Amino acid sequence: MRNDSWSLIQFPVVKDDRGNLTFIEGAQTVPFDIKRVYYLYDVPGGAHRGGHAHKDLEQVVIAASGSFDLELDDGHRQQTVTLNRSYYGLYMKNMVWRGLGNFSSGACCLVLASQHYLEADYIRDFDEFKRLVSSGKNK
Amino acid sequence: MRNDSWSLIQFPVVKDDRGNLTFIEGAQTVPFDIKRVYYLYDVPGGAHRGGHAHKDLEQVVIAASGSFDLELDDGHRQQTVTLNRSYYGLYMKNMVWRGLGNFSSGACCLVLASQHYLEADYIRDFDEFKRLVSSGKNK
Repeated sequence: MRNDSWSLIQFPVVKDDRGNLTFIEGAQTVPFDIKRVYYLYDVPGGAHRGGHAHKDLEQVVIAASGSFDLELDDGHRQQTVTLNRSYYGLYMKNMVWRGLGNFSSGACCLVLASQHYLEADYIRDFDEFKRLVSSGKNK
Repeated sequence: MRNDSWSLIQFPVVKDDRGNLTFIEGAQTVPFDIKRVYYLYDVPGGAHRGGHAHKDLEQVVIAASGSFDLELDDGHRQQTVTLNRSYYGLYMKNMVWRGLGNFSSGACCLVLASQHYLEADYIRDFDEFKRLVSSGKNK
């Protein structure tokens, strides 16, 4: 069992009366080159998005606006992390089952990913995820 | 004079009742590898942020939440572009003087950049920018 399937990163903030700025350098501020960026928006308040995991992909999840809960499970440890500040990012290694819930109205969930989109990298069945964790593969 | 110092990109949208998702693949959806991501938030409604240009950097600017105006000037052509949808990005080549203004309350301005931060790449003086444009350098 690994202890560090996920961790919270505090990003730099350049404070200014005209707005705050947070910058993220690929492979420096986050531990991977940023190959892909995606974001969720127009999410109805309270909405929930179902879970999946990735065989290899690493990601950082950021509440760029508003707040939401990130439900994390690496097959050994479960944790729900509330993201509600734009200068925090939740770094996830591969093989972490995650769901998103409890969105505030107007929230924007920004995700930085270590690889381009690859459908074969997704694990969408929780039982398969548990089997892969038990087998010790994809660590 | 080049005609294409900037252009609007419409990103893909995966529509869903639980929120919409837009994804951006580095060097595919945008014309450069994403080396750096930064975002402006906690911007007071109506705030304005002064201009600068970059000698080499290319960027894509996105209104991830809310709206704002992007004021663009390549030394030959001036245009103000209002960004107010999360699935549009304004691609800027190098040597474009830009300002940001007319922020809506709660707006989040997300920027993807082609290079890591380099102070020497910034042009912070408009007269120097005009001189460099006239000299034809940095095209």
